[in-house]
Amino acid sequence: MIKKVAILGSTGSIGLQTLEVIASQKDYFSVEVLTANQNAALLIQQAKMFHPNVVVIGDESQYPEVAEALQDDGIKVYAGNEAVAQVTEMESIDLVVMAVLGFDALKPVLAALKNKKPLALANKEALVVAGDLIMQAAAKNRVPVIPIDSEHSAVFQCLMGEFDNPVEKVVLTASGGPFLTRSRETFPDITPEEALHHPNWKMGAKTTVDSATLMNKGLEAIEAQWLFGLEVSQIEILIHPQSVIHSLVYFADGSVKALLSDTDMHIPIQFAMSYPQRLKNNFQRLDLAAMGSLSFEKPDIKKFRNLALAFEAMKKGGNIPCILNAANEIAVEAFLEKQLGFMQIPSLIEKCMETIPFVRHPVLEDYIQTDSLCRIKTKEFIKNS
Amino acid sequence: MIKKVAILGSTGSIGLQTLEVIASQKDYFSVEVLTANQNAALLIQQAKMFHPNVVVIGDESQYPEVAEALQDDGIKVYAGNEAVAQVTEMESIDLVVMAVLGFDALKPVLAALKNKKPLALANKEALVVAGDLIMQAAAKNRVPVIPIDSEHSAVFQCLMGEFDNPVEKVVLTASGGPFLTRSRETFPDITPEEALHHPNWKMGAKTTVDSATLMNKGLEAIEAQWLFGLEVSQIEILIHPQSVIHSLVYFADGSVKALLSDTDMHIPIQFAMSYPQRLKNNFQRLDLAAMGSLSFEKPDIKKFRNLALAFEAMKKGGNIPCILNAANEIAVEAFLEKQLGFMQIPSLIEKCMETIPFVRHPVLEDYIQTDSLCRIKTKEFIKNS
Repeated sequence: MIKKVAILGSTGSIGLQTLEVIASQKDYFSVEVLTANQNAALLIQQAKMFHPNVVVIGDESQYPEVAEALQDDGIKVYAGNEAVAQVTEMESIDLVVMAVLGFDALKPVLAALKNKKPLALANKEALVVAGDLIMQAAAKNRVPVIPIDSEHSAVFQCLMGEFDNPVEKVVLTASGGPFLTRSRETFPDITPEEALHHPNWKMGAKTTVDSATLMNKGLEAIEAQWLFGLEVSQIEILIHPQSVIHSLVYFADGSVKALLSDTDMHIPIQFAMSYPQRLKNNFQRLDLAAMGSLSFEKPDIKKFRNLALAFEAMKKGGNIPCILNAANEIAVEAFLEKQLGFMQIPSLIEKCMETIPFVRHPVLEDYIQTDSLCRIKTKEFIKNS
Repeated sequence: MIKKVAILGSTGSIGLQTLEVIASQKDYFSVEVLTANQNAALLIQQAKMFHPNVVVIGDESQYPEVAEALQDDGIKVYAGNEAVAQVTEMESIDLVVMAVLGFDALKPVLAALKNKKPLALANKEALVVAGDLIMQAAAKNRVPVIPIDSEHSAVFQCLMGEFDNPVEKVVLTASGGPFLTRSRETFPDITPEEALHHPNWKMGAKTTVDSATLMNKGLEAIEAQWLFGLEVSQIEILIHPQSVIHSLVYFADGSVKALLSDTDMHIPIQFAMSYPQRLKNNFQRLDLAAMGSLSFEKPDIKKFRNLALAFEAMKKGGNIPCILNAANEIAVEAFLEKQLGFMQIPSLIEKCMETIPFVRHPVLEDYIQTDSLCRIKTKEFIKNS
């Protein structure tokens, strides 16, 4: 049976690669829905190529352009952020691929789960902010949340068939980003151009900067906590510059499972879509003999303060991870626009974590309010700095 | 429920470590049967410590000594190789740990499966010689064969929860043994003392020499073929001197699962005994950051001709792996007794593979005859060389 897929955020990096997977596995997948926030031109092009039943453009001002372009293709066109979430109600959808960036993914994630759609989740922020609500919704509606991120996909795959076997710890690997060996003294001089040059993975700009600050790994630790029901003390980060071991699961009997592959996001994307099956493909294969060696070291949290802040946020819980995430998003934007130095990113996040009111047991509204407030405050801090 | 364990070959290296695991997990395991071939003194000592219901001494001449020593302990004592196999009939046995060395394990392996006992299998040779018969018996009697060998345990664990997902290839790792970096020119000078010094694993003498010649890995490739139903082309050997990645499974979707642990046989022994559960323990944990790096290279089959011979035997099939195994056992014995040089081991095996009559579809009797004939012939070849 062909799985009918809704790709939310189809014009971003993960969305594009998801469509490439679908194009290469036409016997298994078809496109039912495509949504994009801003990039109407690409959305139209994708719709003409993959013939979904529905497309949604988040930015309502672009609705006329999209509607007109697709009017002869028999494709329904909707607009607005609410429609991005509502579209998951469609009976015909078998799987939602959530590739929307940032906090905006939270509402469509919860909508997809409420509508009992299995969720292939590429978005980090929704889980970071409101992992408790998401995992509750998934459990209540008995639908799987299958991570796309290579690290979490690795952990998910390592846990297949292990049922209730006790996990000692989960080790998320980190490439270390472009500044692993750069001396701490020169960190204030880091430019956006340098930060956008990632050694291993092709990703969007925000994620690439997060890889350079290691915030990416901090956010992944918080995601892992929720996805796999872990204590903070069960999560470790290991620097592994070659990025071919995507993560490791230490079981309580001393056995350690790892998931490896070539550094190609198509592989975990396809797995999340085909799970519990695996489908043959021709993506590049891992060749350890050709690589020669793999290396490992502990992360330097003095150099990469964002990582320490993320673990602190995880320990404090409540709305603190939400603050961490929102402050980071604004700080990274400001850094990319050269309004903020590289080393000011963690300082700004820390300031927000200290000053924005703590909510121990937040509901969805608290998360939304914390997120808005934090964005406003962070921008104020940047303006006044 | 406590699993009652029969350890066949309890006085060897794996037998000793199996008893150590049982001693450390008394809530989960008890000893029901112990058997030994020759070492009556140690068998008696083990019986007094673990209180099995039955012990068997293979060497019948030592029966009086064992029977007398244990007569006040309420332990039944039997003798002879037939009894080692027959003892698996006991209703009270929940699991048979097969730690008998060499070809002698074949009959008790088949007996245990016929008696519907789950089998934790440390012996290589039985599978190498008659993997077809063993896997048929396991399937017919619906009992699992759980490998103890770290490489096969790794593959077995990587396949948990994967059901019918397509496997592209299985990569068995090899430490490379003590002569990985030694120049080929000096191979004729290798002494038994040098060959017995393995860098990573503590094993019996025969197995340690097989590690030095890489025959160990060749035998493991043949085992893997049977255990996991693989084509010869799906099995690869990868040199990995640190021996912490025990093997890798390449799935057809580009994902690769690996099983790692500290180099401690207690870990795969316990897993084979506790499967499908995992039990907490305090064995040494893998620490990749402390190791710093892991390395990989392709094996040099010109240097390690035994490995090429094993793949050749696997391709030819029939009774050729049986010939390979018997010739190797005799050759290694002769090498340890300094009757044969290190480089004569593969030459001798090759000569046997070429001269002993080929049987394409052997039954058990053919294997037994081939094994006997090959041992006689190999000894003749050594005598006349």
